[in-house]
Amino acid sequence: MRIITNKNKLINSINIVQKAVPSKTTLPILEGILFKAESGKLVLTSTDLELGIETSIEADVIEAGSLVMASNTIGDIVRKLPDSEIEIVTKENFIVIKCEGSEFEILGLSIEEFPELPSIDRDNELTMPEPILKEMIRQTIFAVSNDEIRPILTGALLEVTEEKITMVALDGYRMAVKTSNILNNNRIKAVIPGKTLSELGKILNDTEGTVNIFISKNQILFHTGSTTITSRLLEGEFIDYKQLIPKEYKIKIKTKREDFFNACDRAALFARESNSNIRFEILDEIMNIRSNSEKGNVHEELKVMKEGEDLEIAFNPRFFIEALKVMDGKEIEVEFTTGVSPSIIRPVGDTDFLYLVLPVRRR
Amino acid sequence: MRIITNKNKLINSINIVQKAVPSKTTLPILEGILFKAESGKLVLTSTDLELGIETSIEADVIEAGSLVMASNTIGDIVRKLPDSEIEIVTKENFIVIKCEGSEFEILGLSIEEFPELPSIDRDNELTMPEPILKEMIRQTIFAVSNDEIRPILTGALLEVTEEKITMVALDGYRMAVKTSNILNNNRIKAVIPGKTLSELGKILNDTEGTVNIFISKNQILFHTGSTTITSRLLEGEFIDYKQLIPKEYKIKIKTKREDFFNACDRAALFARESNSNIRFEILDEIMNIRSNSEKGNVHEELKVMKEGEDLEIAFNPRFFIEALKVMDGKEIEVEFTTGVSPSIIRPVGDTDFLYLVLPVRRR
Repeated sequence: MRIITNKNKLINSINIVQKAVPSKTTLPILEGILFKAESGKLVLTSTDLELGIETSIEADVIEAGSLVMASNTIGDIVRKLPDSEIEIVTKENFIVIKCEGSEFEILGLSIEEFPELPSIDRDNELTMPEPILKEMIRQTIFAVSNDEIRPILTGALLEVTEEKITMVALDGYRMAVKTSNILNNNRIKAVIPGKTLSELGKILNDTEGTVNIFISKNQILFHTGSTTITSRLLEGEFIDYKQLIPKEYKIKIKTKREDFFNACDRAALFARESNSNIRFEILDEIMNIRSNSEKGNVHEELKVMKEGEDLEIAFNPRFFIEALKVMDGKEIEVEFTTGVSPSIIRPVGDTDFLYLVLPVRRR
Repeated sequence: MRIITNKNKLINSINIVQKAVPSKTTLPILEGILFKAESGKLVLTSTDLELGIETSIEADVIEAGSLVMASNTIGDIVRKLPDSEIEIVTKENFIVIKCEGSEFEILGLSIEEFPELPSIDRDNELTMPEPILKEMIRQTIFAVSNDEIRPILTGALLEVTEEKITMVALDGYRMAVKTSNILNNNRIKAVIPGKTLSELGKILNDTEGTVNIFISKNQILFHTGSTTITSRLLEGEFIDYKQLIPKEYKIKIKTKREDFFNACDRAALFARESNSNIRFEILDEIMNIRSNSEKGNVHEELKVMKEGEDLEIAFNPRFFIEALKVMDGKEIEVEFTTGVSPSIIRPVGDTDFLYLVLPVRRR
């Protein structure tokens, strides 16, 4: 193999495929990136056997071929090279990387050992703007469970109907549901691993572009620009999330999102120990937020608009803070029923996002 | 005590004094900041018993007094408060911090246990612009030794004569010497701990201001704006650094600083293991920089202007990179004698900075 390409293009591609290179693995070949050059293109591939990423750049292909280089080594080298043309050429057992006055010789890894990415039937197609998918991921990913005891909850549900696309993540204590109104020809239900969504979210463009999604029984493929991300899907049935959402509420407050976020964030300073919580006391137009610890006590007073009775209720502060952080809009509303039933947070005037959170029994 | 002050002023002061709060200590009181309010001023003090910092801000003092709060706690609270007026008041065993709708109650620490900063005779005075002292620290601090076996080398020498001020740091392998031409009435020699210089460097302004320095037998005091930094001095005689500097050289090269830095930085990629080195081979107008490791080999070719014979010599790459990073100017020159004698690096046309580095025996 012998190619010439540009430093900036190459480092961008390396940064993309490095997102699928595992940081720890018992299979050393997975620490490598496969470079394949043919017909004017250099294709980079990486995989951790669950998630696979492939991206291509234009290159002057003098001699077609393939090679595998350790991801860290080639990343470190290219990052430090000047913004100029880079030549990559195989030479006996070595790979030579040349750029202006620099010449690196590194040992390649075995091309034969590098696993092939799964091929995916491209029949169940779905198309949506990149920024919308990125936003759906951002507003749900934080609620994905880390607990391997219920593996299905370590992923988020992607549910597609004719009129809308919904993404749902829940961990047993809270749930985030984000909907987008996009017309489609398909009805799809798939549970995508949290890790896949997290890396996909970093690759997606936040202002423009289109992403094509193909789903087979066990696999999903995202295609955008010159990059393809494939991932296995999680097996099993996702929880029927709709039945978790209360149909009614008794008390509703409306307040400024940023003020509420800041008050919870400060109250959480003294609720850092596990099991500690912040207590809401809603009295007429005032919401008192309190927490106690060995270090001391916090009391935050927040103005709210209220419908319904007064209420006392306690929460894990992190569950409020993380949701308020990703919400859009200046105002939010919170619906309560009793001190022991789930509460719902939404941005005012936005029916596309819903967050459910369970209270904790007060100490 | 009862005072009202402004959030931004308060957090700036806390950030300054936190630099002397030890991250680990067997004496819990040192994790606190002393707040002392009197005659329109709030004075914050911290110390780790070697380094002490005192800084004051304007405050509306309603009731004079003192209190000690845990540095982390008060820092976290004030950082998260809105940009508004903050009231701090003692109330029985608690300290109450109020700001808009927020009210924190925290337990104070014992005022009696908080150590007093040493008082320093203000006779041996020295005055210099803040940015110059900051620059002197930046260009020498990296060469201070971390090795407690020779404690004197964990500090930098401050040497003052009538015409100039010199700062010198060395660790047995390399030495940085920075001089400034400033007229003074004093002749001073003091060895300042590296930790003190490092924190002082962060506090000093890089564009304006004056710093007054007072030196007694065991202590040094830096006064700038509303902040005073005191530190013990290291005991013992600093090495006679002047006799380490070679009077002559046989070979001299001149090259672009940035290109040289980048070439060494890339060559160092493959010289990360301890004992590994980068080799310079100077042949006429070309300098070849090479390193080898299990991962592979690097060869960098750099254009230089040379006086004298050809030469081969090897170095710890970090010792070159760290010096080239802090140097000013577009071009540098390096003086060599033999492959086993010290080399000198200087910025071209700048006699105020000199860096000496020992080669390693080539493997």
